[in-house]
Amino acid sequence: MAMTLKRADLEPLLLGGCFFGSGGGGTIASARSLVAHFEQGSYYPTDEVRVVTAEEATEGDAVMVAYMGSPEAIDGTAYPVGPVLAVEQVRARLESEGRKLAYVVPPESGALGFSVACLVAAKLGLAVVDGDGAGRAVPSLPMLTFAARHVDPRPAVLVSQDGLAVALDVTPAKGSGGDRQHQQDVSIIVEQMMRPIVAAPEFKQFGGLAMWVMTPAKLIEALPITGTLTRALAFGRAAMRGSLTTVDDVVRWLHDEFGVSARALFATGELWESAVDTTGGFDLGTVTVKAGAHTAEVLYQNESLLAWASDRPQPLCMAPDGICWFFEGEGDAVASNGDIVQADGSLNPAYRGRPATLLGLSANPLLRVPGGLILDSFMAQVNTLGYRGPYVPVEKLTASSYKEAQHG
Amino acid sequence: MAMTLKRADLEPLLLGGCFFGSGGGGTIASARSLVAHFEQGSYYPTDEVRVVTAEEATEGDAVMVAYMGSPEAIDGTAYPVGPVLAVEQVRARLESEGRKLAYVVPPESGALGFSVACLVAAKLGLAVVDGDGAGRAVPSLPMLTFAARHVDPRPAVLVSQDGLAVALDVTPAKGSGGDRQHQQDVSIIVEQMMRPIVAAPEFKQFGGLAMWVMTPAKLIEALPITGTLTRALAFGRAAMRGSLTTVDDVVRWLHDEFGVSARALFATGELWESAVDTTGGFDLGTVTVKAGAHTAEVLYQNESLLAWASDRPQPLCMAPDGICWFFEGEGDAVASNGDIVQADGSLNPAYRGRPATLLGLSANPLLRVPGGLILDSFMAQVNTLGYRGPYVPVEKLTASSYKEAQHG
Repeated sequence: MAMTLKRADLEPLLLGGCFFGSGGGGTIASARSLVAHFEQGSYYPTDEVRVVTAEEATEGDAVMVAYMGSPEAIDGTAYPVGPVLAVEQVRARLESEGRKLAYVVPPESGALGFSVACLVAAKLGLAVVDGDGAGRAVPSLPMLTFAARHVDPRPAVLVSQDGLAVALDVTPAKGSGGDRQHQQDVSIIVEQMMRPIVAAPEFKQFGGLAMWVMTPAKLIEALPITGTLTRALAFGRAAMRGSLTTVDDVVRWLHDEFGVSARALFATGELWESAVDTTGGFDLGTVTVKAGAHTAEVLYQNESLLAWASDRPQPLCMAPDGICWFFEGEGDAVASNGDIVQADGSLNPAYRGRPATLLGLSANPLLRVPGGLILDSFMAQVNTLGYRGPYVPVEKLTASSYKEAQHG
Repeated sequence: MAMTLKRADLEPLLLGGCFFGSGGGGTIASARSLVAHFEQGSYYPTDEVRVVTAEEATEGDAVMVAYMGSPEAIDGTAYPVGPVLAVEQVRARLESEGRKLAYVVPPESGALGFSVACLVAAKLGLAVVDGDGAGRAVPSLPMLTFAARHVDPRPAVLVSQDGLAVALDVTPAKGSGGDRQHQQDVSIIVEQMMRPIVAAPEFKQFGGLAMWVMTPAKLIEALPITGTLTRALAFGRAAMRGSLTTVDDVVRWLHDEFGVSARALFATGELWESAVDTTGGFDLGTVTVKAGAHTAEVLYQNESLLAWASDRPQPLCMAPDGICWFFEGEGDAVASNGDIVQADGSLNPAYRGRPATLLGLSANPLLRVPGGLILDSFMAQVNTLGYRGPYVPVEKLTASSYKEAQHG
């Protein structure tokens, strides 16, 4: 059902987005910084955001819009300049073809992804579609349903925060437009394109990506994971009004309100330490939770992808299943890894010492299709973190660890 | 004056291109491998290449075409698939705008650049313009006159040897189309784009770039360095018929035939050793020449950019002036650094032991404009090699070293 959001609604939306983001999806800090500047005035022509369901999105085309780049650089940004310019370029191109852009779609569930989609829509007089490409945050583009459902990735428009715009038209060597190889080729190219932008101070180290233009019919097909903004908003509101104070509350609420299957992966403990390893050519972060004599580790590249307990031979949970933070006590109940681990690598005192739980959320079945682009892409990423086994759903992993615990 | 080349003409053309390439511009081996397959048949519709002057190029638009990628990967290639596909994409785009592509322009003087332009023209029924962007080979795009004369770099089409095509439309953050910032932005992006292609075996590690579309009027303006194919062809023919057996012959011939000012930078010696240093994040090669008790070193990144004698406090020569190899005795009289230094880092026995001379060629005055994009780009590159002083023309460097030698 269509709804209209005001600035006050964006706080619960970003908190809920953060929870479902599985440790990624941008920091709460970066999303709040953008939302704080959302008011009718010289930048925004309105202080309202229209959100519609995929079925209601019939007035024109939709395009995915995302922030990309270095989380540290994005923190503290006031306006979503890169994403706005990227969507404007797509809109202009569609207009030159007699088509009309009417909607933006967030890439993933996350504090930043949801906030940016809303702010871009408000800035450009568009509406946001209530859904995203994964129902969680993801580390690479082929993990999104837009890729799996073969939306043509042409054009892809990347705009740095200072306005350098690159429109990419990638034709695959083999196969037809939008197929699996094409999505992977475009993903490699887009991720490669981001490198000079992320690395170069003159490009402000981050930017916006607009890609995957969808007609109303294609939108229905390529956006099967819907209602995720509604879900995040409800979660954030419940957390803010104090309805979610314990892990049991959260597990019950997720099940009762949205049919989401969640469980604690490890006893509630507290944040113990964090580490970032750059030897493999990418930033691999680890956060350790300690509960009594036991520890659990979460491995992340922005998003949490793999969780181990130090006393079990198999993981506690692996992507695409969600590995989500929940904190009891005073302060934000949710966090991304970028909120927990500060730029200098130390643990954020706002979370340290509080009861911390890792929740495992069963991924949407669309992310678990054997041999599919999405699951294969996730497992390729999980494999780089050192786990060489097959994908095992979190329900099975936790069932077997309970069994071992009973028999052990 | 227009001319028609056959396969037998491409051998002297590539030899001459190699000499003027200043150690770069692609290897003789890679150019010969392509030229060896140039015959009328299932790939080439003709065995002739039409070459025209810039003034004669009035029948349509021209575009620069270049091979890009790993020299080792290009060696042994039979057909210029990537460059052909890149030019075809540009041609199709121009046709959709009611324009006609009639010419290709080589990026630089070099064995590969000249050969590829000729072969692409033959394949696609176009003509080659007798000129190039530098009159030597260059390590990056902003060093070409097309950039300095602000040809709009949109679109830039990059096609990997296996056919993955990326059309780039780069809009600068500030300034207007084609200006200095725009050229630098596009250059960064294009070079960045090449990385996954060069790194990924599935893209065959190299590709073709078509960029800088020019109308006949713009071609005259942006291609001030002309007649370079004619010059290379004449050089190659003179070398093949035995008219250039000594360094003195070469210096005299260059002056008398084409008004090129050249001088020996160091006594004729022999190749002594080679080294490749990758610590700075790029491949920096060094070739050492030994003459009696003295040694000289040439520093290169594909192209030779800087030459030092071990007994002088200032360089012998620096880019944009040419640092060109000439070998006496049996075998090819010219070489690129990639021909001299083999893939395993050892010196090629075909050149080792022969009398070797480094010639310093005064660059075209257009490459020496103080504060210009071209000279600034060259000096930025030379600075990365450890020389922190100003640009000094080779005539002055050699004059002062003679003076020192006389007084010393």
